Amino acid sequence: MTFRHKNILGIEQLSKEDIGFILDTADSFKEINSREIKKVPTLRGKTIINLFFEASTRTRTSFEIAGKRLSADTINITASSSSVVKGETLEDTAKNIEAMRPDIIVMRHGASGACHYLAQRVDCSIINAGDGAHEHPSQALLDMLTIRQHKGRIEGLKVAIIGDITHSRVVRSNLYGLTRMGAEVRLAGPGTMMPPGIERLGATVYHDMNQAIAGADVVMMLRIQLERQGKTLLPTLREYARFYGLNTENLKLAAKDALVMHPGPVNRGVELSSYVADGAQSVILDQVENGVAIRMALLYLVLGGEQPR
Amino acid sequence: MTFRHKNILGIEQLSKEDIGFILDTADSFKEINSREIKKVPTLRGKTIINLFFEASTRTRTSFEIAGKRLSADTINITASSSSVVKGETLEDTAKNIEAMRPDIIVMRHGASGACHYLAQRVDCSIINAGDGAHEHPSQALLDMLTIRQHKGRIEGLKVAIIGDITHSRVVRSNLYGLTRMGAEVRLAGPGTMMPPGIERLGATVYHDMNQAIAGADVVMMLRIQLERQGKTLLPTLREYARFYGLNTENLKLAAKDALVMHPGPVNRGVELSSYVADGAQSVILDQVENGVAIRMALLYLVLGGEQPR
Amino acid sequence: MTFRHKNILGIEQLSKEDIGFILDTADSFKEINSREIKKVPTLRGKTIINLFFEASTRTRTSFEIAGKRLSADTINITASSSSVVKGETLEDTAKNIEAMRPDIIVMRHGASGACHYLAQRVDCSIINAGDGAHEHPSQALLDMLTIRQHKGRIEGLKVAIIGDITHSRVVRSNLYGLTRMGAEVRLAGPGTMMPPGIERLGATVYHDMNQAIAGADVVMMLRIQLERQGKTLLPTLREYARFYGLNTENLKLAAKDALVMHPGPVNRGVELSSYVADGAQSVILDQVENGVAIRMALLYLVLGGEQPR
Repeated sequence: MTFRHKNILGIEQLSKEDIGFILDTADSFKEINSREIKKVPTLRGKTIINLFFEASTRTRTSFEIAGKRLSADTINITASSSSVVKGETLEDTAKNIEAMRPDIIVMRHGASGACHYLAQRVDCSIINAGDGAHEHPSQALLDMLTIRQHKGRIEGLKVAIIGDITHSRVVRSNLYGLTRMGAEVRLAGPGTMMPPGIERLGATVYHDMNQAIAGADVVMMLRIQLERQGKTLLPTLREYARFYGLNTENLKLAAKDALVMHPGPVNRGVELSSYVADGAQSVILDQVENGVAIRMALLYLVLGGEQPR
Repeated sequence: MTFRHKNILGIEQLSKEDIGFILDTADSFKEINSREIKKVPTLRGKTIINLFFEASTRTRTSFEIAGKRLSADTINITASSSSVVKGETLEDTAKNIEAMRPDIIVMRHGASGACHYLAQRVDCSIINAGDGAHEHPSQALLDMLTIRQHKGRIEGLKVAIIGDITHSRVVRSNLYGLTRMGAEVRLAGPGTMMPPGIERLGATVYHDMNQAIAGADVVMMLRIQLERQGKTLLPTLREYARFYGLNTENLKLAAKDALVMHPGPVNRGVELSSYVADGAQSVILDQVENGVAIRMALLYLVLGGEQPR
Repeated sequence: MTFRHKNILGIEQLSKEDIGFILDTADSFKEINSREIKKVPTLRGKTIINLFFEASTRTRTSFEIAGKRLSADTINITASSSSVVKGETLEDTAKNIEAMRPDIIVMRHGASGACHYLAQRVDCSIINAGDGAHEHPSQALLDMLTIRQHKGRIEGLKVAIIGDITHSRVVRSNLYGLTRMGAEVRLAGPGTMMPPGIERLGATVYHDMNQAIAGADVVMMLRIQLERQGKTLLPTLREYARFYGLNTENLKLAAKDALVMHPGPVNRGVELSSYVADGAQSVILDQVENGVAIRMALLYLVLGGEQPR
């Protein structure tokens, strides 16, 4: 099988076969990360530009490590240092970067749809590293890889996703991916954080978190964006934790071997109690580790790579 | 022929032969940028430090890509993270960097003459990536390369440069280069942006933009530094665009196949109408692409490289 | 001999033999930095993360160059771009970075003990690049290497360290190292900058700088942290320079061939007169040069490297 996507703009565009192919490729790359020599010459002489209009240590570092382990040249451009401050349009910024002949632009941007907009205007490959509240495909793929590694499959699993559904690009990408792979997705969160009509994407909506996690095979907690909400939210944080936080008590409602996931960074005591975050069911660090493998797979496949070995 | 310059401080120091040699070298490097494997081992084991005291995505990225395609190790130091904030002198900063044994320091600095000052005090090669309102030699070289590629020659061409002549290091470097290569250079801009006595550098000064571009083979528009002028300028921006902006109307005054150039980032609707910026005569993205090839040539030549092939 | 330390947290943990071994290894790496091809394949395929919670051009650049000359992949993470702003704990930040499987984390942090804390929680190697007012081991090692290169030995030398003893991690690391190597260490500084009980670490405390430098073989001046003290200190800076600054007059009190050292960046006219900083006895730039060699040695040794050649 050959991968037929030049860009990774969202999970929405990927078929069940595409996703399976990416996960298989990531599985075979994962082993490189624990080798003595963590490097293969696969993308030697390729140029990857990480164009980040929003700060992100984790995702940028993960893509940078992925690129370097494939022997690509990686160049970081962050919003603060970018020409955007000089009043240039996104299209001009991208066209200018493209004129330097990179092979891939990995982009994070605050506006939903920014990556689609770009992909229609430049010739090189675009990988979406998060666009507004729209999609974050590499996150959903690493989530699915983590689930598959621990459960042996995704099909038929009950996955509960809890938190701020409205503003989360993570949940949107996972919704597309998990339903396509045959999982049952349940959503729960405060009414103000639940977008009307989200059921049309194939999820069941609960207002009571306990109902959502009852019998779930996977409990995926979303991050509350404290830095976006401002301090005025703080009085109600305790309330949030009480109704939508995961702790040793309500985790008992899920399946006995349910996985606990979180895209990070965790607000300990808010979305998760520390006990749960560090507990035996938590696969949070597996998610991070799988992130490098998934990104290696994406960088490799968009440039026309075939299934290795 | 061997290149005899250890530093590239400005076009002022380069002879017609030097410039031709750099352009020829860039031409032969340019092809690497469209290869499958965009990398040659030419500068393997060399250390290049990009020391930027002013933010610049475009120039820094272009030098970084150029260095990596030649297999050099590139290290970025930006003003905000630099010891300069701790009250260190420029000379001390540079001497300290030099003690780490880089082969080349590429420097951008807000003060005119900063690169000359440095070159007298350190042993490694210095490449000026823009010093105050003084010179920006790699920009002028990529401009000349672009002109030569499209016109087959520079000698005898009429080049009109329009805008803020006083504060532009781009115009100063181009003035030295273009006149040395035998072009006729015409300048036009508002009276407050035209330095007295600039004619002595070999240009003809016009106050009416239309006279400057009449019959020109190249129309080079300079960037208005919106971010430096502050918002108080905004009421007169429309006026600026009216008298010194390039649009489909006044472009007709130039030669039929005149090139439209701009160092970027473009303020659409100010220096250039969008129609002209994206039109068939615009070579703005060629300039950016040639930037990588010119910088590869400079990095290669200052370290004693000979004409490749 | 094999190096038995997985981490370099401080000089306190290193024996006389360890220090000698590091200095010997650095001596043999130093030569690489003046080669035509400044690169050896020693750490090819290794990933080094520079995790800097405090800005530092010099130390970060030095570690980055060291890593690249050993062919490692180096990735920079700075505090401002790090998840820490999102309220993540240091342990979570580090665990997440570790999950991406770096081989070494080089960390600078504002809190004393941050590196020890981390080393107990992650599996990869940790190198302390400065933690609060605690230790800065690579600085002390490069100081000792510089002394040994110029004096042929450390044992028996009289080393005077002058300045803000209380807030200096440089002095603490040097105190452990120099006393362990058999030097006599003398400290002098204003009473408010002299921590009570520091004599217990093996130093002699003087209040009169002249007594401390009388007959000294090495005079090491510490940096006054102007940027931390604020401008209110400025009236007394002149006073500081008068009582605790090194100039051509009081330098005569030291041994005739005494070395003048400073960790940089120098505040000219405060800790040192320019004449002394640039004088024949100053080895300040040797310190910087040796910094790269010391850091190459540390990166090499913590990963189990054996004495080269």
